[in-house]
Amino acid sequence: MDTQKPSITRQGDRIVMPGLATAHSHAFQRALRGRTQRRATQAGSFWSWRGLMYALVEKLDPEAIFAISQMAFAELAMSGVTAVGEFHYVHHGPDGQPYANRTELAEAVIRAAQAVGVRIGLMRTAYFRAGYQKELAAGQRRFIDSGIEPVLADVEQLMARYANDPLVAVGLAAHSIRAVPREQTIALAEYARQQRLPFHMHVAEQRAELEECLAEYGRRPVELLAEAGVLDDRFVGIHATHLTPDEIEALGAARAFVCLCRTTERDLGDGLPETAALVQAGARLCVGVDSHAGSDAFEEVRAVELDDRSRTEARHVAAEAPELLWLATVGGYQAIGLGAVWAEDRVTLKADDPGIAAVSDNLLADGVLFGATPRAVDVVVVNGQMIVQDGVHVHYPEIYQMYQTTLRRLHMV
Amino acid sequence: MDTQKPSITRQGDRIVMPGLATAHSHAFQRALRGRTQRRATQAGSFWSWRGLMYALVEKLDPEAIFAISQMAFAELAMSGVTAVGEFHYVHHGPDGQPYANRTELAEAVIRAAQAVGVRIGLMRTAYFRAGYQKELAAGQRRFIDSGIEPVLADVEQLMARYANDPLVAVGLAAHSIRAVPREQTIALAEYARQQRLPFHMHVAEQRAELEECLAEYGRRPVELLAEAGVLDDRFVGIHATHLTPDEIEALGAARAFVCLCRTTERDLGDGLPETAALVQAGARLCVGVDSHAGSDAFEEVRAVELDDRSRTEARHVAAEAPELLWLATVGGYQAIGLGAVWAEDRVTLKADDPGIAAVSDNLLADGVLFGATPRAVDVVVVNGQMIVQDGVHVHYPEIYQMYQTTLRRLHMV
Repeated sequence: MDTQKPSITRQGDRIVMPGLATAHSHAFQRALRGRTQRRATQAGSFWSWRGLMYALVEKLDPEAIFAISQMAFAELAMSGVTAVGEFHYVHHGPDGQPYANRTELAEAVIRAAQAVGVRIGLMRTAYFRAGYQKELAAGQRRFIDSGIEPVLADVEQLMARYANDPLVAVGLAAHSIRAVPREQTIALAEYARQQRLPFHMHVAEQRAELEECLAEYGRRPVELLAEAGVLDDRFVGIHATHLTPDEIEALGAARAFVCLCRTTERDLGDGLPETAALVQAGARLCVGVDSHAGSDAFEEVRAVELDDRSRTEARHVAAEAPELLWLATVGGYQAIGLGAVWAEDRVTLKADDPGIAAVSDNLLADGVLFGATPRAVDVVVVNGQMIVQDGVHVHYPEIYQMYQTTLRRLHMV
Repeated sequence: MDTQKPSITRQGDRIVMPGLATAHSHAFQRALRGRTQRRATQAGSFWSWRGLMYALVEKLDPEAIFAISQMAFAELAMSGVTAVGEFHYVHHGPDGQPYANRTELAEAVIRAAQAVGVRIGLMRTAYFRAGYQKELAAGQRRFIDSGIEPVLADVEQLMARYANDPLVAVGLAAHSIRAVPREQTIALAEYARQQRLPFHMHVAEQRAELEECLAEYGRRPVELLAEAGVLDDRFVGIHATHLTPDEIEALGAARAFVCLCRTTERDLGDGLPETAALVQAGARLCVGVDSHAGSDAFEEVRAVELDDRSRTEARHVAAEAPELLWLATVGGYQAIGLGAVWAEDRVTLKADDPGIAAVSDNLLADGVLFGATPRAVDVVVVNGQMIVQDGVHVHYPEIYQMYQTTLRRLHMV
């Protein structure tokens, strides 16, 4: 297979494609699905959703994180996903004290990926404060690092532990400019550059975040990162919903990645990113399941184009099927430090699934990416192992059972 | 079951819900899926898409319409849909001459629904012209009626033929204010009112349509319909994307239905309707698969709320899960003249499907409507007949085979 150009082929009654990458995930949030959709006393927003997420964080222990992550990854695999970028920011015990093994929870998530058999790029995420002039919420205690050094020590510990595991890559993230002030963001980005690690960061997802950044620095988040020299081709900006034309140019000039997470962004009311303009400027795209509000990897990919059609009131605006296929496979793998292995994993679809029935052989990518749902998935192979057969993960009954037991223990069902 | 209040219940390892209604479909357009996603020489738009659709229309014969519709309806059934509103406007032979049996093509579509076993509300659609001061395109010849009388004769013929079929209802539609001038629209609406039939109409989908209506009448489409007394609780406005506050009020005051078709509207770049404002004003909602660009009935339903979150940048804006469940079931059945039977059909989901695994018993509608994909569907029962078993339509192999053969005959694969 061409090392940069993914393709989809028909083989008898099956359609074969490279594995899909979801470059931005918070696996534990899978447990929130269907539990945040009612109005509270106040109007709903990203911030009221965050309160529910923090309440879940306070309940988690390593076993729960393992069980929920395992369910989340098995579901992704059953949707054709073979590689996950986990933006991991729940590090410590409920009181904020590090575990005896400082990377206990990161390892629980990695163990879940290993058990499912998907590749994982674990982005060890720095989080230093609640925000500019903001008090820490109880739910945030488990995220907080005391400084740059322990963050980098964790990264090095994880890199050493998983150096020989072909399923695992390690990267670095700054949670957001809210949670990681400018100087520390620069220091982390510098470290990532030296170590040739991906460097991920939530940027410009919510308008309140822009206001806070303007209040503290007199600059918008991406504007600040551009000035600070943080943007490069290893930078992965998550969301990038609210940008000025100059910020779009800066991401494009740096050949940075922008990771769109449309199913979550729809759920959280983030708004509509200017996807066509980002592509035009030279930014590379990838996609992420983010909060696991839904887990249809095909919908996640086509939404990149479809939601930009809603914004622009035109068709064919951001990406046609070949570009969508690239960003969903090669692009995503590159963005999470697994660019060298994307061609090794594959997904086989049932050609007679109603979603893709009688697609044109000369437009297979169009038929699959605009038509498929997870029901079309037949077999998934990662690193030579078949992890999904006839659409079901090979260990699904045990994974589902453990997930149910865990949610019961957490009094969520 | 309460005759107006649908509910979802758990029964062991299954989750049981009422059948879903898709109130607006053009079944033959299923054959376009994955074949309209490339840029032509010009920039893409609704209008360039329409050119591709007209090219397909010119190829169709009754057998092809049957085979494609059958595939489209089987796919819908496998997504939990038990009732379809077919907005049927391809009436005549390729030269524009009526068939010997004038309702030949409508009957081919109805036969497809009967063969699949889903209910159908066949909206016999009037189409008198290409538009204000517009030449007829070749692809439009098959749509054109010579006057009101043959339209109503067709409606009466269809009503007589299917009077005793519990799967079939007949209604009336005016294609759009483009295709049906004001006086004819008024006459058709008056007939529908006398006969107590649903009256469907595409309204305000595209901005060019507003311009044309303003040029001809000095009024926008919904404004014109309101003044003309066409809006009532039997009126079903399809799309209603571009409205003024007064037009929203008019639809609400009439208790009219607005049928959102988000997966198609996303595909066609229609823009974002003001859903929350429509609900607030008193309009009732339903959903439609429209062009069959995709066929995930759960995505169609949740998109009503999710796309309004993208527009408003807030959560919980248009409809919570109980309202979504109503509009996806009772509302849709009512909108296509099948309101009396909605409670007779049901869909059983696999409770262990990853999309809905471990949903809360007190939030079943939230878990299902925000989390399910077609993979969750187990059994579908319509009018006492089991038409889907273990997620697959009971006649799927033959239906798929006939669809493939038909597309080959039309040189589409």
